[in-house]
Amino acid sequence: MPNERDGRLDARENENTVCPVPRSQYDHVLLGHGSGGKLSADLIQNVFLPHLDTGPVTELEDSATIPCDPRDHQLVMTTDSFVVRPLFFPGGDIGRLAVHGTVNDLAVCGAQPLSLSAAFILEEGTPISDLERIAASMRAACDEAGVQIVTGDTKVVDRGKGDQVFITTTGIGLRPAGLALSIRNARAGDTILASGTLGDHGVAIMSLREGIQFETTVESDTAPLNGLTRTMLRVCPRIRCMRDPTRGGLASTLNELATASRAGVKIDEASIPVRDEVRAACDLLGLDPLYVANEGKLIAVAPAEDAQRLLQAMREHPLGRDSAIIGQVVDEHPGMVTQRSLIGGERIVSMLAGEQLPRIC
Amino acid sequence: MPNERDGRLDARENENTVCPVPRSQYDHVLLGHGSGGKLSADLIQNVFLPHLDTGPVTELEDSATIPCDPRDHQLVMTTDSFVVRPLFFPGGDIGRLAVHGTVNDLAVCGAQPLSLSAAFILEEGTPISDLERIAASMRAACDEAGVQIVTGDTKVVDRGKGDQVFITTTGIGLRPAGLALSIRNARAGDTILASGTLGDHGVAIMSLREGIQFETTVESDTAPLNGLTRTMLRVCPRIRCMRDPTRGGLASTLNELATASRAGVKIDEASIPVRDEVRAACDLLGLDPLYVANEGKLIAVAPAEDAQRLLQAMREHPLGRDSAIIGQVVDEHPGMVTQRSLIGGERIVSMLAGEQLPRIC
Repeated sequence: MPNERDGRLDARENENTVCPVPRSQYDHVLLGHGSGGKLSADLIQNVFLPHLDTGPVTELEDSATIPCDPRDHQLVMTTDSFVVRPLFFPGGDIGRLAVHGTVNDLAVCGAQPLSLSAAFILEEGTPISDLERIAASMRAACDEAGVQIVTGDTKVVDRGKGDQVFITTTGIGLRPAGLALSIRNARAGDTILASGTLGDHGVAIMSLREGIQFETTVESDTAPLNGLTRTMLRVCPRIRCMRDPTRGGLASTLNELATASRAGVKIDEASIPVRDEVRAACDLLGLDPLYVANEGKLIAVAPAEDAQRLLQAMREHPLGRDSAIIGQVVDEHPGMVTQRSLIGGERIVSMLAGEQLPRIC
Repeated sequence: MPNERDGRLDARENENTVCPVPRSQYDHVLLGHGSGGKLSADLIQNVFLPHLDTGPVTELEDSATIPCDPRDHQLVMTTDSFVVRPLFFPGGDIGRLAVHGTVNDLAVCGAQPLSLSAAFILEEGTPISDLERIAASMRAACDEAGVQIVTGDTKVVDRGKGDQVFITTTGIGLRPAGLALSIRNARAGDTILASGTLGDHGVAIMSLREGIQFETTVESDTAPLNGLTRTMLRVCPRIRCMRDPTRGGLASTLNELATASRAGVKIDEASIPVRDEVRAACDLLGLDPLYVANEGKLIAVAPAEDAQRLLQAMREHPLGRDSAIIGQVVDEHPGMVTQRSLIGGERIVSMLAGEQLPRIC
């Protein structure tokens, strides 16, 4: 991570920052920053709020009131903790990931995000400048996704009892009442689409950890998918389900789908988009791209007759340019995923058995 | 914590458990339990779901759909991370605290909880039996509060990069549209009430950590306050605000109130309910009960003419039996809290400056 860190901008000079912000008088997190007293107030007022003051959160109540008009909509809720290591990586950082990850969980179930909460568990001694940088990045990620962080919390743990910064984001969203997306809905004959190249996020993190250099740096694909899903559902309201293949990658997502829908899944290796440099890194690291995490991609299952129209719409969206049809749902081998290899053989793609890439998100 | 741990029941025999549950084949958390693959599924299916299968969470979608009819209501959202050490203590554990803490944040703003999410950050090596015990305890706490955990997440960090179990809960709730509780609403002349004895939770934790023995064990007061707040708001819909004085204790809550409402706060030491054993422990530990955390108490500010009626209603509720009028909002010294001592002197009660009790919640 040396280059990334040496080259970092002070959060106040960062393009993500909207205005000059006050500065905490501390350089590192102290246990007292978790006290609920003056130091906690300092952290909130001088580190988080300058970046995250997008409305209700500034009211400093313990809870936030969320304006919402849920007529003909269902309320949807999702949560994720982020423990990625390192905190900063090509293409993103833990803050960006924490916003996009939760926005995407809402997006793939057909909901548009209403609001997010963010809870921080900080290790004593964490540089305050890292927190400022993360807060600025979260703000930029929120702006991209069109959502606000409306409430939050900060706890501090003693040195050696955490790892700098963990962030838990929870999102609520509204989904049109008519939609019924579910991984149980896939039916034989359906087409499976991916919204772009697979494995970018996991390889970006692992290359950094392992110190592997390529001619082109692999960047995390972390991105908010709610714009793409909105487009997709407009074009094809009959989409059976969407999922974002994060931890465990495409293979785990498809296995969950096959199990939940009691159907078989067949994918075609030749059609699965993987960047050359990601494939090269996977070879070097002994990884299979099918199992590597993504943070800005989705898998969709749709009736075959809608597939081409849906693919076209996905490709017209900036976050779906490399979309592809990667396989079908079949009657054979219910609950199982198989892949036709480049040379024509067929193999079972099983669920990830152990841990491939710890702390990838 | 030796007595507590030696005496612990297997979760399957615990009275909180509603039915015989399947068993994880692992005794300790492995990194692979955070993989998103087979081991993650094992943890969810065999450890969490047997206790938390109260509905939507069992559907295993990434998000939960929440049935809600928000006519004439506002949606409210709150989040808190829990990093309490030790995990188990007299009167509760981290799981119980994580449910009650978030329910109470909703309750004191006048909302009834709709649903909770729970995100776990586990340290590699944590005993699975501890997780089962915590999950059972969360289920019991949810039942008490009349709420459900509808979605969750689990991440695992390497040994030495966490501290067994951190839990982040987020709650959403509905508040009648007519209510406008806010810490900015206190006005000179208002009466300040506390719902019971102060300092119990903090002293329970600190006594355990410091190995202090008393004739009677001080137990944490962790409890869900949404029943009490419902009663209070029925009797006195004009309540200006309610707050739960957790980290930083009564002193921090009152300082926030004084600052936000630009009013003075006067409290009377003689009227503040503190258990004898809590006072004794505070003397021994060098703590001031005003700054010690509570997890089942609230402070309410109400118009003086409603105060007696409200006090009566609070005392009739099992969680408000020891309620008392503890002070007034005044015109003098706006933004400042003062206390009349037992011997008649007056002192300023300032905001907690550093860290008094790290990792109390």
